[in-house]
Amino acid sequence: MAQMRICFIGDSFVSGAYDDECLGWVGRIGAAARRRKHDVSPYNLGVRGETSTQIARRWRAEAEARQSAQQEGRLVFEFGVNDAREVNGKRQLEAAQSLAAAREILAAAVAWKPTLMIGPPPGGDAARNARVNDLSEAMAGLCALLGVPFFDSFAPLAASSTFIPSTKAVDGTHPNAAGYAEWARLIDEWAAWRGWLP
Amino acid sequence: MAQMRICFIGDSFVSGAYDDECLGWVGRIGAAARRRKHDVSPYNLGVRGETSTQIARRWRAEAEARQSAQQEGRLVFEFGVNDAREVNGKRQLEAAQSLAAAREILAAAVAWKPTLMIGPPPGGDAARNARVNDLSEAMAGLCALLGVPFFDSFAPLAASSTFIPSTKAVDGTHPNAAGYAEWARLIDEWAAWRGWLP
Repeated sequence: MAQMRICFIGDSFVSGAYDDECLGWVGRIGAAARRRKHDVSPYNLGVRGETSTQIARRWRAEAEARQSAQQEGRLVFEFGVNDAREVNGKRQLEAAQSLAAAREILAAAVAWKPTLMIGPPPGGDAARNARVNDLSEAMAGLCALLGVPFFDSFAPLAASSTFIPSTKAVDGTHPNAAGYAEWARLIDEWAAWRGWLP
Repeated sequence: MAQMRICFIGDSFVSGAYDDECLGWVGRIGAAARRRKHDVSPYNLGVRGETSTQIARRWRAEAEARQSAQQEGRLVFEFGVNDAREVNGKRQLEAAQSLAAAREILAAAVAWKPTLMIGPPPGGDAARNARVNDLSEAMAGLCALLGVPFFDSFAPLAASSTFIPSTKAVDGTHPNAAGYAEWARLIDEWAAWRGWLP
């Protein structure tokens, strides 16, 4: 049985926005780990609307406040869709800015605690999906360089018969409870996550 | 339908420690509000083991990072049991220190955003329960002075046939899922909470 405190850091997809069960994928994989008898304390540090540069400014202080001398600390990140989102016709962050922020965050994270990265998901907007997919692939390359295991959310969720339809039932961006459950099921089967919590 | 972002700030009882469903009372009252069709974004800022003086140091920066120009911000606090807990035979904070920290937190909070205070719960240790009950009563008085609605958790949970037995099934301090569900049910019926989210 593993004992650990895990900070889940990122955007609205981490916070579980629009999940009527108030669990998101974070709560679902946390509950699944507890059902496997692990003593896990998940800390949900997702904030709606945040880009990678906003996350870069706050994550370390928040994660430090949640460490314990008695239990191992771990970090899981997910962000990117807000970076690639257009607001008033302008992309919020160019890919180079996103990657610079992701490098800053993930290099500091993995030098401090075991770290995983969950890639950003697809949604109901084809043009944005192309930008998110490109960013996700670039993040995968960055993570390979940094030695951070990367979970590709985009490809399996784009292929899922549940996920994108679930975002269309909400706001075209966020899934509902069924979509979060599908995403959680995929992450919970991921070898890097199961390596932490068999 | 109300739209709001609510920061829930406090200790392990806020974070939902030992709830195998990873909801705690925060997730349950959040999900209940969503079932009533409110667009609520709950942010769970509970940290295991924290006393009121530790919460005083971090809550404001964390709550500020979670505000939005588009949605109202609200604050809900719960803390106190760690203050009254003895570690190596010594109470972690004397009542006067707890009340000074609670005054600092709650006066700043209510001057900034609509604020509620949830009192600390009983557990399986009679001597600690006496200290927690005294602290809860003093907090109720402080909240009355500051104009912060206070929910007395102690009396109804001490009288509940579910709650204290549920803590004995865990670690003598934290409830299990059934105990959190009972606590959530009581808070969800509280007029001050329902005033926010009818």
